[in-house]
Amino acid sequence: NRGPINKGELWVNFLSCHKTQQSLLSSASGYSNYRGVLNWCVVMLVLSNARLFLENLLRYGILVDPIQVISLFLNDPYSWPAACLVIGRFNVKTLAVPLCLSLSAQGSFTELVGFLVHCTNMAVMLTFPAAVVLLVPSVTPVGGVFVLGTYTILFLKLYSYKDVNMWCRELSTVKAKKLARSLSCPSGQTLNGGDRQVCYPGNLTIRDMYYFVFAPTLCYELNFPRSPNIRMSFLLRRLFEMVRKYLIFLLSFHQWMIPIIQSSMKPLEDMDLSRMTERLLRLAVPNHLMWLMFFYWFFHSSLNFTAELLRFGDRQFYKDWWNSESVTYFWQNWNIPVHKWCLRHFYKPLLRRGFSKKVSQSAVFFLSAFFHEYLVSVPLRMFRLWAFMGMMAQLPLAWFVGHFLRGNYGNAAVWISIIIGQPFAVLMYVHDYYVLHYRQEAD
Amino acid sequence: NRGPINKGELWVNFLSCHKTQQSLLSSASGYSNYRGVLNWCVVMLVLSNARLFLENLLRYGILVDPIQVISLFLNDPYSWPAACLVIGRFNVKTLAVPLCLSLSAQGSFTELVGFLVHCTNMAVMLTFPAAVVLLVPSVTPVGGVFVLGTYTILFLKLYSYKDVNMWCRELSTVKAKKLARSLSCPSGQTLNGGDRQVCYPGNLTIRDMYYFVFAPTLCYELNFPRSPNIRMSFLLRRLFEMVRKYLIFLLSFHQWMIPIIQSSMKPLEDMDLSRMTERLLRLAVPNHLMWLMFFYWFFHSSLNFTAELLRFGDRQFYKDWWNSESVTYFWQNWNIPVHKWCLRHFYKPLLRRGFSKKVSQSAVFFLSAFFHEYLVSVPLRMFRLWAFMGMMAQLPLAWFVGHFLRGNYGNAAVWISIIIGQPFAVLMYVHDYYVLHYRQEAD
Repeated sequence: NRGPINKGELWVNFLSCHKTQQSLLSSASGYSNYRGVLNWCVVMLVLSNARLFLENLLRYGILVDPIQVISLFLNDPYSWPAACLVIGRFNVKTLAVPLCLSLSAQGSFTELVGFLVHCTNMAVMLTFPAAVVLLVPSVTPVGGVFVLGTYTILFLKLYSYKDVNMWCRELSTVKAKKLARSLSCPSGQTLNGGDRQVCYPGNLTIRDMYYFVFAPTLCYELNFPRSPNIRMSFLLRRLFEMVRKYLIFLLSFHQWMIPIIQSSMKPLEDMDLSRMTERLLRLAVPNHLMWLMFFYWFFHSSLNFTAELLRFGDRQFYKDWWNSESVTYFWQNWNIPVHKWCLRHFYKPLLRRGFSKKVSQSAVFFLSAFFHEYLVSVPLRMFRLWAFMGMMAQLPLAWFVGHFLRGNYGNAAVWISIIIGQPFAVLMYVHDYYVLHYRQEAD
Repeated sequence: NRGPINKGELWVNFLSCHKTQQSLLSSASGYSNYRGVLNWCVVMLVLSNARLFLENLLRYGILVDPIQVISLFLNDPYSWPAACLVIGRFNVKTLAVPLCLSLSAQGSFTELVGFLVHCTNMAVMLTFPAAVVLLVPSVTPVGGVFVLGTYTILFLKLYSYKDVNMWCRELSTVKAKKLARSLSCPSGQTLNGGDRQVCYPGNLTIRDMYYFVFAPTLCYELNFPRSPNIRMSFLLRRLFEMVRKYLIFLLSFHQWMIPIIQSSMKPLEDMDLSRMTERLLRLAVPNHLMWLMFFYWFFHSSLNFTAELLRFGDRQFYKDWWNSESVTYFWQNWNIPVHKWCLRHFYKPLLRRGFSKKVSQSAVFFLSAFFHEYLVSVPLRMFRLWAFMGMMAQLPLAWFVGHFLRGNYGNAAVWISIIIGQPFAVLMYVHDYYVLHYRQEAD
């Protein structure tokens, strides 16, 4: 086995140990497998943030205080204006709507009177809580956002409820004239889930109304798809996620964002540009992570929890916005309930009235910008237009990204606009709030 | 077009706008396209590091000083001991070897005398520069690493040169006995590049020796594969990369690593564990990025530049170590010249002498650990075993990763060991060096 011929072959193998070839990183090699780079990115991110976490803990100690968390919602823990406002008015408003609608279904109201009552109700729903938040001093900003958010959701839901019932009424009038078959209620038989299909005006019950108010959607439908039963394990997992994410969220906010925001006040006051940029980038990471946590907490855990509890079948609360290669795709996919509402009750009606696609799209962004501003300015009692401008700036940004960037570059541009844009607006508001409230006290 | 039937169809479309479906992030959805997450990682890394860069600049200003850069290599700028040592001894050593070998080829030396002369030469090559670095006080640590690195490379090259020529000599003896065909020189015709093939002992020229000494490989071969011509654009691009990477490297070192190392001294002295961990993680990022830069600078730019200049055909200086899923794969692929040398002149000879694979592999790690320690301890004039232990720790680590982690987890483990392991050893040496030199002065 170790004879001279074998040795000779072995030697030839030894003697030529090089062959002509290119380095892998040279473009000539045609090599493109950088799978490991993704792992590298993840490891680097985890390590960098572990370092930041440790540095933060060493510098500030533990900052979270359970009492302080409660006082975010209330100035005076014994009066609960925000909660009372939500519960009390909520029920009054909600009850008013099916009452009106069943009256109009019975023909007691003319179309015009019904329309006027509806408009008054809707207008009051937006203005009354705003007035309370502005005028009652014990409502804190966080409590205010909570109240106004709830009322905005209710506003959108009732708008949809009224629209759908109006369409049904129109349809039943048409049917009565043409004797067409029942389009609004294709078949009276039971579904496989055992739920009976409901026809207009059989849907105008308080029970149906309340189901819609609590269901995780903004678009009313007479017969929602229902899941066959409540899966307890799914429910508990979502509940566990909700609690865990909520705690991490609070912890990050107090431990991470508050110190950065506080340390940003001085550079912001002095308008020190390079330090402001540094603070902005420093704020961007926790702000973005908290936004991601909020997204997961609200759109995945909470809405799925509610849907499971109510046996609501349609769980599409978001699509794959993380892959979006254009700003438009992002806005169409990250918040499906609002997107669906805008499409069904705002964009398509505008198109039907003869507006062009571009105008209608801009109008949707304008509406969204209005509600963003409404949800921020009123609770802060401070009318700057940063949130409004932030939303409206999406239009030129969408145009730019759509025209000049494709594929991964477009995706990266969307991520950058999310990561940088938000903390920019946050810093603006915080700065103005600080100047308005604390510098006055200091003077 | 807007007749009642069309309207009816439109309405049905409106009336049912939900369908039963799962959220994308639920495991039941079977969705797995997270392409955008890679872009997110890249954006987050760039932004985090932009922030660190800006913070560093604001805190320390610009720290790079061209004079200080030169003084890294020299204490006294008018005596160049390191450079003289390299140039002078280098030539003496290099010339001695082909002389000895041509003498032995002519049969003037017996095999034993030749072996003894070779051993003496090799031993002197490792010990003499080490002695100079240890004893001449004007050699700085960086200069020392440079000198010892050069001599280590020369040592490995000459070891290979001697081995290959010995094999050729043995082969020619066998051939003379058996009249076998010339295996060491399969064909005398010219290659397509126009270079003539060389046969033993025709290779024993000073020109051939010097080509091998400067060629970017550690394994000698009689007829290296040659590229047909020098591509000027390739050469200039590599040169530009070399200069650029070198400048970025120096900048990062002074601006980023030195402040962190300096600020780590206090926690290290006090043995404050949590602060030490924080400094370690803080050091890990620049250290790792600089290692990556060094890798690219040396293994891609510099070696390709040299290879192009010498028309050396084999450009495989590294393989795809970034995808390595085990520690062994990493060590086999990140430094191909050394790996090839170890395989050809150390691992396979050990196997042929009857050692098992495991023992031979451990021996390779031991040799590597020895040279790591040699290249660090001697220039620092400080015999700690951190580098040696760092290399030897790869053996249990390789066993652990190989047995318990697969795929992406294995890859992540390799990355973590690279990112964390190196700065750990660096901090250890820096701490000991600091305690030895600066605390003595302070006392």
